[in-house]
Amino acid sequence: MLKSLRNRRSIRAYADRDIPEDLLGELLEVAARASNTGNMQLYSVVVTRDKAGKERLAPAHFNQPMVTTAPVVLTFCADANRFVKWAACREAEAGFDNMQTFITSAIDAMLFAQTFCVAAEERGLGICYLGTTSYNADQIIEALDLPRLVVPITTVTVGWPAEPLPAMTERLPLEAVVHSERYRDYTPADIDRLYAEKEALPENEEFVRVNNKRTLAQVFTDIRYTKANNEHFSEVLLDVLRRQGFLR
Amino acid sequence: MLKSLRNRRSIRAYADRDIPEDLLGELLEVAARASNTGNMQLYSVVVTRDKAGKERLAPAHFNQPMVTTAPVVLTFCADANRFVKWAACREAEAGFDNMQTFITSAIDAMLFAQTFCVAAEERGLGICYLGTTSYNADQIIEALDLPRLVVPITTVTVGWPAEPLPAMTERLPLEAVVHSERYRDYTPADIDRLYAEKEALPENEEFVRVNNKRTLAQVFTDIRYTKANNEHFSEVLLDVLRRQGFLR
Repeated sequence: MLKSLRNRRSIRAYADRDIPEDLLGELLEVAARASNTGNMQLYSVVVTRDKAGKERLAPAHFNQPMVTTAPVVLTFCADANRFVKWAACREAEAGFDNMQTFITSAIDAMLFAQTFCVAAEERGLGICYLGTTSYNADQIIEALDLPRLVVPITTVTVGWPAEPLPAMTERLPLEAVVHSERYRDYTPADIDRLYAEKEALPENEEFVRVNNKRTLAQVFTDIRYTKANNEHFSEVLLDVLRRQGFLR
Repeated sequence: MLKSLRNRRSIRAYADRDIPEDLLGELLEVAARASNTGNMQLYSVVVTRDKAGKERLAPAHFNQPMVTTAPVVLTFCADANRFVKWAACREAEAGFDNMQTFITSAIDAMLFAQTFCVAAEERGLGICYLGTTSYNADQIIEALDLPRLVVPITTVTVGWPAEPLPAMTERLPLEAVVHSERYRDYTPADIDRLYAEKEALPENEEFVRVNNKRTLAQVFTDIRYTKANNEHFSEVLLDVLRRQGFLR
């Protein structure tokens, strides 16, 4: 299993082959064994298989092709709604309309999602996470009829990998992300050392060149994850948290 | 591997046996292969092995004994600091001081954390997540010297399971958390059906009795996750997000 975790890569191109319902059910069943807060299971997943449903979701994901070409699209949600409804049916009043519950639910949703992904990859499926979910949560809420106290956190497209498999992407050296006992902040010399290998990769040098930038960091800050976009989508997200009842 | 995922349970009692440094390193290396946003790896982990460090963290986790009895305590953090420092060294200005970046980083941190946990359990280790991390993030920031744009998201205690293993905990039937195509909200009849098995378990009936409550839901809403606590810790969290630079 460590081998499958070690050799994994995100899969964005899928074979034209469906995922049997019982396999999907088995993987979701296994995923639900993941840790969760107080065993309240403050998450839900919406399974999209229908072509019309995928087309409804696609614009929220900036029409990335995986949404319509994957046999299955999973939208993982922070969900305090089910718990609150349960409480209301049982002479109990849940004070779950707040940020702490949102974070707790988002964590539960991510543990469930990632356990699903590990299990799916172990069975030979390929997955890709879509970070666009938190950008356009408002559109996804509408497309999937998500009620109050439910917020989509991440989306995973799932399918059988098309050949050839993509190359594995690099990672920073482990020392870049691990701190011993206390956080040791990064000096310019640390940054140079930790990012040297990443910056020297031919594909990253090419990435800088085709984007007409001077440094790899600029490709991220000026093109892929700009301040203007981050701030715009932060407002959308805060508005979603207010509308769904998690933020005053 | 599906077998180890299927039979897992959180482990709160550990054998008196250390975790070799090379095993921990291998598991963290594997965890770093998890998906992450734009390959920016917006996370960090602080490894606590020293007794003094565990004692410094313990109050933030309401002195749950696992913090001081586990050989290793891992604090997983949303971390935009390293990326922003990299950008600053490379003629780039990152607009990462906002909620969207916080959510993205928190997601990255959770994928990293859960992949670590799956790998650790596959190797025979036991883990327990501590939800107290988001409650007392302010105290953890101080204990671990976390700089601006770094927020602790979750904590995992890790060790070799002490015998006997605890029982596995129940889960809601899969249909409770899975929606097909669109979210189908829960009617009172749905709630009764989906929670029937959970409520009828002898350990849960006992849980209601010892807490002098009438329903299982009341144990959660009146004792374990009260409105007053949720609201108090929401304010602490929002204040932490402001102070760490993710929220205006």
